[in-house]
Amino acid sequence: MIKVGIVGGTGYTGSELLRLLVRHDQVEVTAVTSRSVAGTEVAEFHPGLRGEIELAFSTPETARLTDCDLVFFATPNGTAMHEARALLDAGVRVIDLAADFRLQDLDVWQRWYGMTHAAPALVEEAVYGLPEINREAIAKARLVANPGCYPTAVTLGFLPLLEAEAVDATRLIADVKSGVSGAGRKPSTALLMAECGESFKAYSVGGHRHQPEICENLLRAVGVPVGLTFVPHLVPMVRGIEASLYATLERSELDLQSLFETRYRDEPFVDVLPAGSVLETRSVRGTNLCRLAVLEPQGAGVVVVQSVIDNLVKGAAGQAVQNMNLMFGYDEARGLALSAFVP
Amino acid sequence: MIKVGIVGGTGYTGSELLRLLVRHDQVEVTAVTSRSVAGTEVAEFHPGLRGEIELAFSTPETARLTDCDLVFFATPNGTAMHEARALLDAGVRVIDLAADFRLQDLDVWQRWYGMTHAAPALVEEAVYGLPEINREAIAKARLVANPGCYPTAVTLGFLPLLEAEAVDATRLIADVKSGVSGAGRKPSTALLMAECGESFKAYSVGGHRHQPEICENLLRAVGVPVGLTFVPHLVPMVRGIEASLYATLERSELDLQSLFETRYRDEPFVDVLPAGSVLETRSVRGTNLCRLAVLEPQGAGVVVVQSVIDNLVKGAAGQAVQNMNLMFGYDEARGLALSAFVP
Amino acid sequence: MIKVGIVGGTGYTGSELLRLLVRHDQVEVTAVTSRSVAGTEVAEFHPGLRGEIELAFSTPETARLTDCDLVFFATPNGTAMHEARALLDAGVRVIDLAADFRLQDLDVWQRWYGMTHAAPALVEEAVYGLPEINREAIAKARLVANPGCYPTAVTLGFLPLLEAEAVDATRLIADVKSGVSGAGRKPSTALLMAECGESFKAYSVGGHRHQPEICENLLRAVGVPVGLTFVPHLVPMVRGIEASLYATLERSELDLQSLFETRYRDEPFVDVLPAGSVLETRSVRGTNLCRLAVLEPQGAGVVVVQSVIDNLVKGAAGQAVQNMNLMFGYDEARGLALSAFVP
Amino acid sequence: MIKVGIVGGTGYTGSELLRLLVRHDQVEVTAVTSRSVAGTEVAEFHPGLRGEIELAFSTPETARLTDCDLVFFATPNGTAMHEARALLDAGVRVIDLAADFRLQDLDVWQRWYGMTHAAPALVEEAVYGLPEINREAIAKARLVANPGCYPTAVTLGFLPLLEAEAVDATRLIADVKSGVSGAGRKPSTALLMAECGESFKAYSVGGHRHQPEICENLLRAVGVPVGLTFVPHLVPMVRGIEASLYATLERSELDLQSLFETRYRDEPFVDVLPAGSVLETRSVRGTNLCRLAVLEPQGAGVVVVQSVIDNLVKGAAGQAVQNMNLMFGYDEARGLALSAFVP
Repeated sequence: MIKVGIVGGTGYTGSELLRLLVRHDQVEVTAVTSRSVAGTEVAEFHPGLRGEIELAFSTPETARLTDCDLVFFATPNGTAMHEARALLDAGVRVIDLAADFRLQDLDVWQRWYGMTHAAPALVEEAVYGLPEINREAIAKARLVANPGCYPTAVTLGFLPLLEAEAVDATRLIADVKSGVSGAGRKPSTALLMAECGESFKAYSVGGHRHQPEICENLLRAVGVPVGLTFVPHLVPMVRGIEASLYATLERSELDLQSLFETRYRDEPFVDVLPAGSVLETRSVRGTNLCRLAVLEPQGAGVVVVQSVIDNLVKGAAGQAVQNMNLMFGYDEARGLALSAFVP
Repeated sequence: MIKVGIVGGTGYTGSELLRLLVRHDQVEVTAVTSRSVAGTEVAEFHPGLRGEIELAFSTPETARLTDCDLVFFATPNGTAMHEARALLDAGVRVIDLAADFRLQDLDVWQRWYGMTHAAPALVEEAVYGLPEINREAIAKARLVANPGCYPTAVTLGFLPLLEAEAVDATRLIADVKSGVSGAGRKPSTALLMAECGESFKAYSVGGHRHQPEICENLLRAVGVPVGLTFVPHLVPMVRGIEASLYATLERSELDLQSLFETRYRDEPFVDVLPAGSVLETRSVRGTNLCRLAVLEPQGAGVVVVQSVIDNLVKGAAGQAVQNMNLMFGYDEARGLALSAFVP
Repeated sequence: MIKVGIVGGTGYTGSELLRLLVRHDQVEVTAVTSRSVAGTEVAEFHPGLRGEIELAFSTPETARLTDCDLVFFATPNGTAMHEARALLDAGVRVIDLAADFRLQDLDVWQRWYGMTHAAPALVEEAVYGLPEINREAIAKARLVANPGCYPTAVTLGFLPLLEAEAVDATRLIADVKSGVSGAGRKPSTALLMAECGESFKAYSVGGHRHQPEICENLLRAVGVPVGLTFVPHLVPMVRGIEASLYATLERSELDLQSLFETRYRDEPFVDVLPAGSVLETRSVRGTNLCRLAVLEPQGAGVVVVQSVIDNLVKGAAGQAVQNMNLMFGYDEARGLALSAFVP
Repeated sequence: MIKVGIVGGTGYTGSELLRLLVRHDQVEVTAVTSRSVAGTEVAEFHPGLRGEIELAFSTPETARLTDCDLVFFATPNGTAMHEARALLDAGVRVIDLAADFRLQDLDVWQRWYGMTHAAPALVEEAVYGLPEINREAIAKARLVANPGCYPTAVTLGFLPLLEAEAVDATRLIADVKSGVSGAGRKPSTALLMAECGESFKAYSVGGHRHQPEICENLLRAVGVPVGLTFVPHLVPMVRGIEASLYATLERSELDLQSLFETRYRDEPFVDVLPAGSVLETRSVRGTNLCRLAVLEPQGAGVVVVQSVIDNLVKGAAGQAVQNMNLMFGYDEARGLALSAFVP
């Protein structure tokens, strides 16, 4: 049984963490902070948690986070880098669901996130929390950088192809689509239902922060820099990410289906569908799964991989719980036995 | 003033044609046929047309279509090929909104559409109704094959690049997304709102009928066969198509923005947005426009083109009216002065 | 031909006005103001108006509104009451689409809107712009208070029953539902698609500002105060209002269907459906119509009226144009020949 | 540990039952039948159940249902009445999620459901499965008629008022709204997303089968026939029911809030919100809860009750599991510890 705190409990990532942790039998949530609604009952603020949790939001100052075994940061980018050090020094382990510790290349980070990094030494120490590539390091980590939602879906989709040197790594294309909850819970005109309902659009076409994160992941896999064209789109739905990945096949003798099945055979949260399958985001809605389908080329030697996740679960809070389980020696899937929410 | 008939007036293409034609000041709709609801008032069947049209559905037999100057087929594939000949022989011009006359390669057509073609000679005569490539031929045609929705969006997006030999034509990728009205108005489990609402998926990943249609269009543009990977997706919204198109740039000296602007400078229904623009499908909702944005490579020499249309207007009924205007010498935009329906 | 200005052109009411006015052949839009985006092209700000209008937003100061024949206020409540006087004094007529001049009872207004009224004399002069009850007065008015969206749908639904003294006026119930665009276009957490998508809720259950407006309308119809329970709900869609109205029948000999048909026989924008009809909001989407269906009691003497409008058209901008037509002697329906946007 | 069979496992009620039962630690699902897809793996048919269940659909003939302790019928109306007898005779207990045994008045049943009842004796024996009124009888029942979705929401909302004789029982009004999954999973034009997306409508305005079911429930509560006007509406979302209930208050001294809190104090699945609360359907999405809010009159003596449920859980499969728990002596909430799925 561990004591857990959540810094920033009013957004979607924070509420999804709460949804998962209140049912985890080895976790006691002892603090949830929010400056804006400190004093309010968590269950009053989050309409769906009535009866699930008896705890009020506290300020970070009064939250006694140093009494926790683990603190999750479900805060905007640029918060955890200021506050993690004190917790680590007090012996508290930390999982940051924001981007502060995701990129090892500080220059790249500072360019994309538009701020000076406050804790470069912690970046170096941080372990990137994608269990499918970093399981052992996560288990031992004091500080875990929980991956972005797009990077989770895209990395897991390209990984088998790049590890097998099956495709041209300099010409990768990721056409990705996300539900609106991926943009977070903050006042915004662009994310009003009257703006994004009944419409579909690309965004950040000039470049998106998740692109360098994916490139770092793939670089580790292949050892040479990859070329990635990454175009995100906004889907008029609440949850879900679909990534359609395109690459030019360079080894025609490979059985792609078996390549993927073998790579992920032992992964509890990656599910490779039979050849010819169609993937819908709802098939993973509410679960911690990444489901993949690999399509033999229609022609022209282009392989297509589809990857779907729930952006708030495997793309955020669920993966954070998976990392927590690894860090504290629990079964990796503990508290994550979630059926897909269909229809 | 011309007399116009519509064969098959209960589907979305037929009702959109009606919506446009009742406001076209040079058109009198004299017949709308439907076997299933013959005798019913059109305005009773289509909730939005009350007060707009006084006409009941008739059967094809009683519709006196040969009195028309023009007949639109808004029928399932495989209908017009049986019925067009008699009309043409009677001096009636025909626009088929289905796929019967879209492919010049009969073998390919028969393989994709799973039937033997009933009127090969008419295929040869038919003019492909994309005004941006066939304006003069359409004006003189007796029989026009109105393009598919995806082919309209994808062809217009790739065309300037291929005409300028700017990209590798053997490695084209089209990641396309459509609202659910593209699948038509027929009883179906897969298209129930409870099935496709709040979810996003690819479909027809093994191959889609619109792929060979696009390839024929592009072949005409460049003179050599193109290689196209085409993956359609279903978006939980009613109307709209977005195509994200990817190609490998082979001429780096080109100003892509100016290439597109020049190509479409005189087109009334193609609008090239300023560099850096983001396109949303609602910006063309209810209009006959195709809006395009071309993105300079993010790296790796891949050019990205975005193309959006309303699948029922420029992708179907609106383009049919545009073709009708050309065929009868009206201003091409007559009856198509439609503002985007936002929000 | 008249010159028209719009104060506040960035919201949904303003953009809908623009959509309608750019196609109105007797109107020249000479100024659209917005402090926040002054200098920006209107067509750049509103994605759907590219090519429809060549005008940049101006500040109210530079807009030369006094050169207009008519100025629309599409501003938040509390703006027009400060600015209308100067325009009226300069001979400009004014239509306020906000609530400043809707209630004759100033005390009630000040209680519901939480401010002191800045122009009580103008309240007295203002004509309530519901043509179905005030046509002649509107035609002569200098200042028109354009009705709220709910009051339009509810008033038109109850009116025939109350005028005929057919129901108990002390026990009226209006269960109303609106799409999210009714809440306007401003940064808001509650109206994010991730908050209101895939959910349905009541709101303002303690009381809503449109309730006293409806009561004033109905009081005029019957001469005695009415009792109205009014519960608004938010529907996960962009446009449309449905009102289900319940009243206890007191005259059983009446033919309700004929009562409604007679009352609205000459109204261009009220359409009474045949008995037994079901109304869907999309049947009026994009139009200036109010469609009504009256249901004979299922039992217990309760009559049910359904009323649907497009909240942005008959519920706002369309009705404003209808009022403008009346004020300037144009055909009441000029520029409002709009087919329903279905599907 | 009990053995459970499901007759009719392809619809939404059946799949939701599966979702719940695969996680219930006292249940083994030994058979799921479907004539149309017999032989197909359940997890292949239901996209979200991959990895959750290893069982193929069987035909009713081969399913060995008589080996079960309990069989659920998740079939269309008119099926269970033919098949329940044989199972009961074999000692199997039965819960019917359709309407076959819901109405004690056979004449009324036959009129509304348009068929002759095949098992009148079983109707007499059947227990109406609303635990909040029938807990003891359910525990002992061989045959349980699981309530309809609307009747669950409406009955629980009116019950405290009628039991306390607080309102005029002859003038009840229920304005109810449902997501589209309530209409089931069958090919249908009216329920296509292109038909019901972005629109809101009433339906079955002439009368709905759930009206007499509610009236029977309320009759039991008050002992005299009630008068109920019941108008259902279709909301463009997948799951959820909201009922806004209106009644004329006859006892003004009552504290309505405390009346509701007292009535449901010990109910595990009814949650009365604090006075002034607003209810949204998502606050119960995926849970077995009915949440209620009672509003003091705005005036005119009309009390308003809001009631929300998930139509597939408390409105169908969840309530069936609750009944199963009661019948087999498990804790009533076993397997139903479900957090709301928000956002």
